[in-house]
Amino acid sequence: MTYCVGLLLETGIVMLSDTRTNAGFDNVACYRKMFVFETTGERVVAILTAGNLSVTQTVIAKLRQAIARDDPEHSIMRAPSMLDVAEIIGRTLNDVHVAVNERMERTKYSASASMLVAGQRLGGQLRLFLVYEEGNFIEATDDTPYLQIGEHKYGKPILDRVVTPETTIEVGRKAVLISMDSTMRSNLSVGMPLDLLTIRRGEYRVSTRERIEAGDPTFSAMSEAWGNALRDGFLSLPG
Amino acid sequence: MTYCVGLLLETGIVMLSDTRTNAGFDNVACYRKMFVFETTGERVVAILTAGNLSVTQTVIAKLRQAIARDDPEHSIMRAPSMLDVAEIIGRTLNDVHVAVNERMERTKYSASASMLVAGQRLGGQLRLFLVYEEGNFIEATDDTPYLQIGEHKYGKPILDRVVTPETTIEVGRKAVLISMDSTMRSNLSVGMPLDLLTIRRGEYRVSTRERIEAGDPTFSAMSEAWGNALRDGFLSLPG
Repeated sequence: MTYCVGLLLETGIVMLSDTRTNAGFDNVACYRKMFVFETTGERVVAILTAGNLSVTQTVIAKLRQAIARDDPEHSIMRAPSMLDVAEIIGRTLNDVHVAVNERMERTKYSASASMLVAGQRLGGQLRLFLVYEEGNFIEATDDTPYLQIGEHKYGKPILDRVVTPETTIEVGRKAVLISMDSTMRSNLSVGMPLDLLTIRRGEYRVSTRERIEAGDPTFSAMSEAWGNALRDGFLSLPG
Repeated sequence: MTYCVGLLLETGIVMLSDTRTNAGFDNVACYRKMFVFETTGERVVAILTAGNLSVTQTVIAKLRQAIARDDPEHSIMRAPSMLDVAEIIGRTLNDVHVAVNERMERTKYSASASMLVAGQRLGGQLRLFLVYEEGNFIEATDDTPYLQIGEHKYGKPILDRVVTPETTIEVGRKAVLISMDSTMRSNLSVGMPLDLLTIRRGEYRVSTRERIEAGDPTFSAMSEAWGNALRDGFLSLPG
């Protein structure tokens, strides 16, 4: 399992992913699920992946190959808009998904996958998409400024309560970390370390990028303070 | 969808269910999912149901029929222990589930269901079970003093943080209501009114029972105070 979340705020984008991958409980590994494609000052595209690792790795490899070949139709670094970037990723994801599942049909398994895609190109808008394995996608808006993939339920309530487009990047960063903390507590297949990046609007590059390791003291302190705030808030409730 | 939760505390049991049933988003209705069987001072059994309404209603009808017939093998009011009660309910649920799904197999639908069963008989222990459609069941313990059925993810984090066997019934009541509040905010197919009951250990009857209607001022105040506590706690976090 996986948990990835992206926020589209007035001042920029915040994206967070875990790194745990498992094929059954007895086969757990750590894989990066955050991928950045950047020409600094011109274009930045960040992709977070969830689902079957053979599907998502193949999609990323195909995207990289098209960039290396400077393929005008399939390179996300040449696409004229973020919408076109999302469409290229959607087509690639759907092609791989269909191909893998055709082979899997004989067994009883199926391989699903989805992706968060965020970025901005010079002269374009900062946008955040959720791309489905069918190749279609939805986009974050002012009404719903966040998107999630993977194990999204445990970490949703806090996002609903604190994230609006006016939220600052610093507060948004805290919100996605608390959302991830709730998810990791409830689902063992979501785990540290975490990858977090921010893209400030109009910078056309990754503004900050950090890996938060297990036992990170700042994250642990935040997690503990949140637990205390929840307990104290609960115990002081009326009714 | 449905959300039902039960707590097994040192002083008694707290059970809460919503009442919303839907067959598609355009066909929403209100059905009670909490059923009580009681011989005051001798035996009390409370059942909460989740899943396909045709399955759960048929199971409850069959349980009632066996009680009316005073069937020594199938009446949960004659079963010599709460374990036997859970077994009778498990067998009945599995029989109905299999029968309904055999007929449904020709379509692509399937009808799943599960139940929470709690109670105590004179001379026996107070126990809380989760009965699966396969007829098997698990029991709440000191390590995990709560059980949930239906849409369980949104409301789980608060239970994990505040419920222990030493929790009082009054605090447990608040905990299940906050857990339900989080669930209703995130899943439209879980909705008011709510049914809440408590069974104090050694009373062999339902100790309190209440229906909480939409707009209930005490529940609304608790929900609002919880929202404020979450936001305030979040905004004062370090990191």
